[in-house]
Amino acid sequence: MTVRLNSLVREIDTGKGEVLLDKGESLPYDELVVATGATATKLDIPGADKEGVFVLKTLRDGITIKNYINEKSCRRAIIIGAGFISMEMSEGLRNLGIETEVIYRGDLPVSRWDPEFSKLVLDELGKNNVSFITKTSPLSIEGGNKSSLRLITDNGNYEGDLILMALGVRPNTELARNAGIAIGTTGAVRVDVSQRTSGERIYSVGDCAEVYHRVSSEWVYIPLGDIANKQGRVAGSNIGGNPMEFKGVVGAQSFKVFGLELAATGLDEKAAQKVGFDTASMIIWGTPVARSMNLKKDRLGLKLIADRKTGKLLGAQAIGESGAVGRINTLSACLWAGMDLDEVGYLDLAYSPPFGGAWDTIQIAAQALKRKM
Amino acid sequence: MTVRLNSLVREIDTGKGEVLLDKGESLPYDELVVATGATATKLDIPGADKEGVFVLKTLRDGITIKNYINEKSCRRAIIIGAGFISMEMSEGLRNLGIETEVIYRGDLPVSRWDPEFSKLVLDELGKNNVSFITKTSPLSIEGGNKSSLRLITDNGNYEGDLILMALGVRPNTELARNAGIAIGTTGAVRVDVSQRTSGERIYSVGDCAEVYHRVSSEWVYIPLGDIANKQGRVAGSNIGGNPMEFKGVVGAQSFKVFGLELAATGLDEKAAQKVGFDTASMIIWGTPVARSMNLKKDRLGLKLIADRKTGKLLGAQAIGESGAVGRINTLSACLWAGMDLDEVGYLDLAYSPPFGGAWDTIQIAAQALKRKM
Repeated sequence: MTVRLNSLVREIDTGKGEVLLDKGESLPYDELVVATGATATKLDIPGADKEGVFVLKTLRDGITIKNYINEKSCRRAIIIGAGFISMEMSEGLRNLGIETEVIYRGDLPVSRWDPEFSKLVLDELGKNNVSFITKTSPLSIEGGNKSSLRLITDNGNYEGDLILMALGVRPNTELARNAGIAIGTTGAVRVDVSQRTSGERIYSVGDCAEVYHRVSSEWVYIPLGDIANKQGRVAGSNIGGNPMEFKGVVGAQSFKVFGLELAATGLDEKAAQKVGFDTASMIIWGTPVARSMNLKKDRLGLKLIADRKTGKLLGAQAIGESGAVGRINTLSACLWAGMDLDEVGYLDLAYSPPFGGAWDTIQIAAQALKRKM
Repeated sequence: MTVRLNSLVREIDTGKGEVLLDKGESLPYDELVVATGATATKLDIPGADKEGVFVLKTLRDGITIKNYINEKSCRRAIIIGAGFISMEMSEGLRNLGIETEVIYRGDLPVSRWDPEFSKLVLDELGKNNVSFITKTSPLSIEGGNKSSLRLITDNGNYEGDLILMALGVRPNTELARNAGIAIGTTGAVRVDVSQRTSGERIYSVGDCAEVYHRVSSEWVYIPLGDIANKQGRVAGSNIGGNPMEFKGVVGAQSFKVFGLELAATGLDEKAAQKVGFDTASMIIWGTPVARSMNLKKDRLGLKLIADRKTGKLLGAQAIGESGAVGRINTLSACLWAGMDLDEVGYLDLAYSPPFGGAWDTIQIAAQALKRKM
């Protein structure tokens, strides 16, 4: 194996079975893996290229932001967007003592979660002195007065020494597209369960490729690090001569924001209805430990979504100071196996008062939703 | 429904379909549920009935012990046995400032877990000033000098104001047995998935009854509170006219001792080999959060047991300061669904650095064990 650093592939020549490098060189391949990743979305507004305006996708992005904060003694920051990168960065910036404002075109942060849970995230931001400005769209960026930058929006102007655009990513598919490799409906490279593309002897993995969703039975675009890792392993195994299939994902995801854990898996109602499920859903408020042990009065919110026709679990969302991720991982295994609410409601879990009730919140929620259906 | 307190059932007359109460009264039944529970094992040694010698099974036992501790200003306690009740009580007693010694006939506490994990429990007891006396069997109990009681053993004498026998429980089956109801090979009341016994219109649930183990496909005796709850619900539903089956258990269990979480599910090697599996197993030491986040250097130990023939997961054990129970619950759902190591190794879990690595310890362990097989 040869590693070539600082070399850019300009083109894939599928006819000749070689890639053309930026230095005019060409390199033959027996098998090729397209792992071109994704690019963080940057708003195309005037001033977006000013010093102090960042996106956060790569390790290098992170280091660049950190250095900038230190060198410029950054005091105020503006984050555009309200997904989990925005939430994580707002915590990181506040921990450095930087005044932080989140600017969002919608109403509530982290739209994958139920509004009831998003409101708690909003409260948590407030408690930690993060301003959350709603229904606001950026128009341009100029130099500021009190701070080095000023964000002009349709709802007032905001100043900061740093502006982070946390608006999601889009897959880097240009190289594949130009080589005639099929792109899926999601806009990412179409692959099969072996990670093979439509191109002969060409694989694709990671943030540029689609992935199979076991609950919706559709190919989706979920650019997450754990999925990229698995896809890379599968492609490598197939190229190495050990045939292997990637069994897909159920859409598990989590993040932490200050004192809150949030996790979700499967489909939310909108996504489930879009693929034809007749959904029922319910939120249950339980505790992460048995009520008798719950001295701190911690609460655990769990929302389940199920299919009325089959009774099958379709998705789950959880929020709490603790215990949310563990529950969602358990429910992810349930989704993986295609369990229905009857099974989830009577699952055998490791009961002990410091870790849950004799009926865990998972079981209570599954039974309650079943009764409702 | 009539509730009769302070009434003891002396006998079940299955011919007449009635129960005979202690006061000579008889009570007819349409359906009967035998929920006679279990009795904590008490050593049959001289002095076992002395004041200050306890078992802990019921809420009343707990209150009695608490009152005794307060009234007698208890300073030293002896616990006989080293299961999870012993562990939980050693923590409870130490938290009250009581000197605590655990007396055990074996070498290591909590024998369900691998010796490597049990040794960490032993360390945790030591750190919290609980003495653990091994290879020691009690012979009798007398009055003491420094404390009110003295435990005479085959390995020296130990004094304490309180002696707790934490030696497990046995099912209360006398009433069922006398009525001719079938008792299983485990010694508990034999039931089917509807909680019906061999007696006509007679059900049994809880700590007196057997339960179906989905991994071993055998009827076993696991007297735990969450299982009793489920069985009661199933019997009630069947009696009430809504037919329902209890889908069984996978043997999930957990407890906390001082700063450690322990959890286990499925079969250990001995139990798996006993029912004919050709086992392979492996312990992996990971972390409960991503290595990049693990400032406290917490470790998470995970042991997996699998079947060489089918590659199926058979059991799991975990230990750590955090994250053990969540992992075991996820693996319990995997066991419930009968997953093999390939599936467990590529399960979709909610990855985020504060809650695990891109490859979680679950996935690393499943893949490592698969390679070993």
